[in-house]
Amino acid sequence: MPRYRITVEYDGRGFVGWQHQKNGVSIQEVLEEAIFRFRGERVRVFGAGRTDAGVHALGQVAHFDLARGAKPDTVRDALNFHLKPARVSVLAAAAVPDSFHARLSAKSRAYLYRIVNRRSPLTLDAGRAWHVVAPLDHEAMHEAAQALVGRHDFSTFRASLCQAKSPVKTLDVLAVERKGDEIRIHARARSFLHHQVRNITGTLSLIGEGRWQTGDVASALAARDRARGGPTAPAEGLYLTEVVY
Amino acid sequence: MPRYRITVEYDGRGFVGWQHQKNGVSIQEVLEEAIFRFRGERVRVFGAGRTDAGVHALGQVAHFDLARGAKPDTVRDALNFHLKPARVSVLAAAAVPDSFHARLSAKSRAYLYRIVNRRSPLTLDAGRAWHVVAPLDHEAMHEAAQALVGRHDFSTFRASLCQAKSPVKTLDVLAVERKGDEIRIHARARSFLHHQVRNITGTLSLIGEGRWQTGDVASALAARDRARGGPTAPAEGLYLTEVVY
Repeated sequence: MPRYRITVEYDGRGFVGWQHQKNGVSIQEVLEEAIFRFRGERVRVFGAGRTDAGVHALGQVAHFDLARGAKPDTVRDALNFHLKPARVSVLAAAAVPDSFHARLSAKSRAYLYRIVNRRSPLTLDAGRAWHVVAPLDHEAMHEAAQALVGRHDFSTFRASLCQAKSPVKTLDVLAVERKGDEIRIHARARSFLHHQVRNITGTLSLIGEGRWQTGDVASALAARDRARGGPTAPAEGLYLTEVVY
Repeated sequence: MPRYRITVEYDGRGFVGWQHQKNGVSIQEVLEEAIFRFRGERVRVFGAGRTDAGVHALGQVAHFDLARGAKPDTVRDALNFHLKPARVSVLAAAAVPDSFHARLSAKSRAYLYRIVNRRSPLTLDAGRAWHVVAPLDHEAMHEAAQALVGRHDFSTFRASLCQAKSPVKTLDVLAVERKGDEIRIHARARSFLHHQVRNITGTLSLIGEGRWQTGDVASALAARDRARGGPTAPAEGLYLTEVVY
């Protein structure tokens, strides 16, 4: 059976997240429904990252098999036609060998977390960034973040519902930059724990506000205790930007 | 009476535009209503640019007078409180002399027009950019655009409903750049005719598609005839970014 890899962009608002849920519409479901409308086949779509409700994607990757093949460009265009009016868009489609698996074959995933750091409410960025009023010191955030880079037990930054077998992950990049009112946190790893980027972001916000000192991040990490970490930053600021194979 | 200058950001979706209209809600109206809720005064708010329905602003400027003054920061925060849930945000407020007039004192206005140039539908940028599928040559667009810089009779790029006394305007900057899938058109002038940026953008899109040649823009301009210009680009890609005094 021909296997297809697709790169998917979506506005996470209004979705229960990537994965099927009984309580609402998932990205996975609207993609599977679009494939059914296109080919009349009920297939399962496998995604590289299980983004939560409200989390956006600029470069999610997924795969699925079709009994009756079609040109990749036709697959892309037909899915986009049948996806309307959902805010889910197939940016690219490619034929891949059966050995390709969107989740298992991924070598790294990159996330972006957007904070708009200003006093006034958001308009165009509402639902697309975390609005933080307290002035944040992005340089202090970046410096403190470096304690998390590398291979660590990330239990402090792990959601209680996380299903990963081990809390040990290797964080390759964690960088904080400012562009005007916006603070961008870039994170890259082979894989992440559930809520890991949002819990790290919430913790770094405490550094940015000056409520925590640089060394407090390393202490929190060493404690391997979620209660020692900062708050979970809201879903709306998080973007799955890239999956590398 | 104390006069206040405010810098305003808004998401143009769902509004009939800056100016009062009988057929829907304007930015002007929600600002005047917020001032009334704050101070109990019915005032008129004067804006620097009359943005159309669906046009966004990152830096609109307006002024108004209050009988009972308040600290500028209090004005900003109180208006933001009373503006909710409208997607209109006061970024800054300042006390200004009576001689200041948001429209008449403006020395220049800057607009940004955003085109997302790709095959796949928009998700996060839906309503916030013009989606153009045909590949656009941004360098050709930039080159052709230079024929419009300077002092000209812009009748070719003027809406039939335009109320300006003269079609002669001086365009200081018209620059086209590409960042990945996105083409950004930057325009700056003391003032613009109605639909001028959108009509110029629609015309430049013909250059970008290769349907017009570079010299066709100068010919269209010289014709001083709206029928010789390109289509009007949609409102959703346009942003009033800055007003300089």
